[in-house]
Amino acid sequence: MDDCRDRAGTPGDAAPYFKRIGIITKPAADLAIRTAFKKLTSLLDEMGIDWALEQSCDSPISRMQPARFERNQPDRDLIIVLGGDGTLLNAARSLSQWDIPIMGVNLGRLGFLVDIRPSDLKLYLSAILRGRFVEDRRFLLEGTLMRGDTRVMNAIALNDVTFKMRDPARMVEFEMRIDGRLLNHQRSDGVVICTPTGSTAYALSAGGPLIAPDLPAIGIVSICPHTLSYRPIVISDSHVIEIVPKAQSRGGGSVSFDGQINQPLEVGDALVIRRHHHDIRLIHPCGHDYYTLLRTKLCWGEQSG
Amino acid sequence: MDDCRDRAGTPGDAAPYFKRIGIITKPAADLAIRTAFKKLTSLLDEMGIDWALEQSCDSPISRMQPARFERNQPDRDLIIVLGGDGTLLNAARSLSQWDIPIMGVNLGRLGFLVDIRPSDLKLYLSAILRGRFVEDRRFLLEGTLMRGDTRVMNAIALNDVTFKMRDPARMVEFEMRIDGRLLNHQRSDGVVICTPTGSTAYALSAGGPLIAPDLPAIGIVSICPHTLSYRPIVISDSHVIEIVPKAQSRGGGSVSFDGQINQPLEVGDALVIRRHHHDIRLIHPCGHDYYTLLRTKLCWGEQSG
Amino acid sequence: MDDCRDRAGTPGDAAPYFKRIGIITKPAADLAIRTAFKKLTSLLDEMGIDWALEQSCDSPISRMQPARFERNQPDRDLIIVLGGDGTLLNAARSLSQWDIPIMGVNLGRLGFLVDIRPSDLKLYLSAILRGRFVEDRRFLLEGTLMRGDTRVMNAIALNDVTFKMRDPARMVEFEMRIDGRLLNHQRSDGVVICTPTGSTAYALSAGGPLIAPDLPAIGIVSICPHTLSYRPIVISDSHVIEIVPKAQSRGGGSVSFDGQINQPLEVGDALVIRRHHHDIRLIHPCGHDYYTLLRTKLCWGEQSG
Amino acid sequence: MDDCRDRAGTPGDAAPYFKRIGIITKPAADLAIRTAFKKLTSLLDEMGIDWALEQSCDSPISRMQPARFERNQPDRDLIIVLGGDGTLLNAARSLSQWDIPIMGVNLGRLGFLVDIRPSDLKLYLSAILRGRFVEDRRFLLEGTLMRGDTRVMNAIALNDVTFKMRDPARMVEFEMRIDGRLLNHQRSDGVVICTPTGSTAYALSAGGPLIAPDLPAIGIVSICPHTLSYRPIVISDSHVIEIVPKAQSRGGGSVSFDGQINQPLEVGDALVIRRHHHDIRLIHPCGHDYYTLLRTKLCWGEQSG
Repeated sequence: MDDCRDRAGTPGDAAPYFKRIGIITKPAADLAIRTAFKKLTSLLDEMGIDWALEQSCDSPISRMQPARFERNQPDRDLIIVLGGDGTLLNAARSLSQWDIPIMGVNLGRLGFLVDIRPSDLKLYLSAILRGRFVEDRRFLLEGTLMRGDTRVMNAIALNDVTFKMRDPARMVEFEMRIDGRLLNHQRSDGVVICTPTGSTAYALSAGGPLIAPDLPAIGIVSICPHTLSYRPIVISDSHVIEIVPKAQSRGGGSVSFDGQINQPLEVGDALVIRRHHHDIRLIHPCGHDYYTLLRTKLCWGEQSG
Repeated sequence: MDDCRDRAGTPGDAAPYFKRIGIITKPAADLAIRTAFKKLTSLLDEMGIDWALEQSCDSPISRMQPARFERNQPDRDLIIVLGGDGTLLNAARSLSQWDIPIMGVNLGRLGFLVDIRPSDLKLYLSAILRGRFVEDRRFLLEGTLMRGDTRVMNAIALNDVTFKMRDPARMVEFEMRIDGRLLNHQRSDGVVICTPTGSTAYALSAGGPLIAPDLPAIGIVSICPHTLSYRPIVISDSHVIEIVPKAQSRGGGSVSFDGQINQPLEVGDALVIRRHHHDIRLIHPCGHDYYTLLRTKLCWGEQSG
Repeated sequence: MDDCRDRAGTPGDAAPYFKRIGIITKPAADLAIRTAFKKLTSLLDEMGIDWALEQSCDSPISRMQPARFERNQPDRDLIIVLGGDGTLLNAARSLSQWDIPIMGVNLGRLGFLVDIRPSDLKLYLSAILRGRFVEDRRFLLEGTLMRGDTRVMNAIALNDVTFKMRDPARMVEFEMRIDGRLLNHQRSDGVVICTPTGSTAYALSAGGPLIAPDLPAIGIVSICPHTLSYRPIVISDSHVIEIVPKAQSRGGGSVSFDGQINQPLEVGDALVIRRHHHDIRLIHPCGHDYYTLLRTKLCWGEQSG
Repeated sequence: MDDCRDRAGTPGDAAPYFKRIGIITKPAADLAIRTAFKKLTSLLDEMGIDWALEQSCDSPISRMQPARFERNQPDRDLIIVLGGDGTLLNAARSLSQWDIPIMGVNLGRLGFLVDIRPSDLKLYLSAILRGRFVEDRRFLLEGTLMRGDTRVMNAIALNDVTFKMRDPARMVEFEMRIDGRLLNHQRSDGVVICTPTGSTAYALSAGGPLIAPDLPAIGIVSICPHTLSYRPIVISDSHVIEIVPKAQSRGGGSVSFDGQINQPLEVGDALVIRRHHHDIRLIHPCGHDYYTLLRTKLCWGEQSG
């Protein structure tokens, strides 16, 4: 994580560091979004900053489709996401190849990724636009569904790639391999492969550890494994993980990327997961502190007895 | 659990304690089953015991339908199940109302319920038929799906009643109530409500405690709960548990009985779970010891380091 | 748990249900205690109720010694404890044989046992004294240290009996037996044997389940067990638990009752734990709800994300 | 982990890769040790290899004192440890500064570190001495006890640095800081700071994840934390961890290095833990596979149900 420093020109120089802002929101129909959007765009107008509404991540359908950014590089220096962590996950995947910084303004509860409150927007926005911010690179995972030697499907995830049975009443049996070496055979409800970013999301509910955002590591967390001595495993991000369902496994599994893109597996399909070659760049206000966020989000300070 | 004692007549009395034996098997097509079936029936023939093949629990379809026992009381003193724990679960549900003892002969790996090895059959069978056995009563759960005031569906479970989302990529939001009092609101992958018998099955994989078979208690184990301070809860079997999905919960949940009977919920449905009014009676050979079974099944003795 | 009902005479009858109140406090030197004590006794004086200061549980030394109640029955109908859960634990052990109800007024954070806030004292006290309250019986454990056939030491616990090594850097090796039958051999940091009351205390930190207060059950929770497939076990309160350290276990273990009474073991000593033959009776205001307390104390409602 | 390759001269070259062997054992009084020692030295004599008995790690006292290696570099190319993981831990700490490879021959159960069986010694030894082996670098932790600005004590650990209370019946209250930033305040039985090597030792019993040996990461695992939403944390090995007991914490804590070197803390002492600047080099036979070892040691293949 970078130290906080002024990236704009000389102190007296009024030219902003970020000149063209793109905005991505949840559905505009939501009053909180509309209010925050209005507040944000008013602030940008006051500062004379060029902005454009790039996308509303509004329909469940849109999640399943390639966002426009996956084709064309947006002509923007900074993307501001108005919404929750889910909105930012969606935006991050579609923006990852363009190396454009992203900042998130939360509209409900404070998120791990979307960590600026609308009430603090005025305070932080002008500083960030002048180049005073903390940049926080996060890596993504790339999952490929293989049918024999054919790549059937490919997608990326900022939080996690999850393999589960489509039928919630069935266990799945599969082999896990790391760089081609057998890790284990397992019967379980499935497995979560997570980035450090995703270690505070579904993987955490499944019993996984917290992984610091600056550690180049991947978490492997089995969900309700049948073997009681299984434990979460943290490995280097340089390894390639394979999930190979057993041939006799009736019916099929399903792979999910950030819980947002879902794809059923056919019998014989295998899943290959590795670090994606692009990172995303999260922008936080100066003073941002990951551990403070952890304490707040996980109720560490509050519990007593 | 009863002490082991001779239940037949006077020592010199050759009359068996169990006179009419019913047999329930997994599909006869399986060689191991056919071999064990032949061995069992030869032994019974040698002893001059009346036996009948009551049922093959063979097709996936049959699991969804009422077994014949649910209509007519079988004219049998003892049911012998040849198969795995799954076969016995299926048989136990359909036999529960008739109060007929059940013993299980395992065909693959030793089970928690099906705990006699075919190689020990000769040794144990004649003793059991003479009335020397341990009887182990186990209670069942009864789950009712309510749509408003209408009972949409009712089923029983020896292991557990599980509530989950049908879509494995979605969390479910619901309220849990115990005797009408709020336990908690939760977001999770679902919840397992288990008997002591089921505490060694799916509930254990989900992080639940072992509950001794003679304790009249029900376990409540959330699956990957979003709130990290949730813990499994063990309550008296006299309580009634309600699971009420939140109205805004998109799509629907699914309830599963022993992982064998599955029923989708519609929006607005609620689930009510209580102790069933019939028990089942498991028959074990003298010397049966639950803790020895635990140690064997959970690899307690083997681990070292 | 009793329904809340009026236990005093006819509605117009002014005679209180509890006539003689004993008060037990933490050290009077504490300002919060002195303030609460003054408030409590003023209220009692206003109501014309006879009260007496029975005991200050003030010095660490006093914890190790028999309280006066262990010799003489206090001439009191109700004991009010001013302090935290620790003060009430201490009082409960010494009062258990006299069957006198206990209510707790907390002075810092809300406790599981001491659940009346000083600010609510006025509201609840007169109702309780008139007999309108919820009575909540809790059982205790009794632990006996055996040296061969000699009982070396005996003590009771409302929360838990904990067996650990005195040297925090060493594992302990021991056998656990239930009613004389082997449960397991274990190497661990120790084990917590808890009542339902204690299931929200140390046992919970060690990974144990919540056990509802009305369930006659004992929890067995290993602390950092070497064998990864160990799980907490919940058994009936009718069983007797034995902990037998291995002879070759260098150095000695230590047994702790509610974390307040501590006793080292010598090589060869064994520990026998069973349900104590006296219960205690906790008094709560009408409307008391255990699950509400759970949600508050365990931060269930607060966490979000 | 290196690929397995021949490091000696030309294939026909008989000159060994390791020429001078040092041997470290557990107490010679143990028959298994004496047998293995005899076997090993006979093999070395047959091969005409120079060897010397460097050290017996035999008395509890010796563990507390600097081994001779900490003063003088041993004139050896390879150290062979005969014993268990504990013997190797002890040897590794004293050898770390000299960059001498270490191989371990286990005498009882297969260890994570000491992974050659005496029965396989003949098979592997000559290959290893010719330079055919897998080298596996492992980093260590260095812990410093600070009293104000004074370094009171300094030691290293291959597995873990553990902070606990000396009194097993007391919780400890402390602050954890990472690079000077607050991670959390905690009340717990203590905390384990582990290397990847130590992630399969005490940290695993305390609920920590497995950390792959090639990941430059440190695990932080709280022991029985009072706050139920605490989770193990995995951070980069570049960070410095501080443990600062609360001033009001009665009595004192204790720090333990690999469970072998122990030091009490006085009130006001703080503990600083960072990656040590020397690694150790473990030598494994060709074909060594970490995941196979995991599966064997953690009983992953054996459990069934």
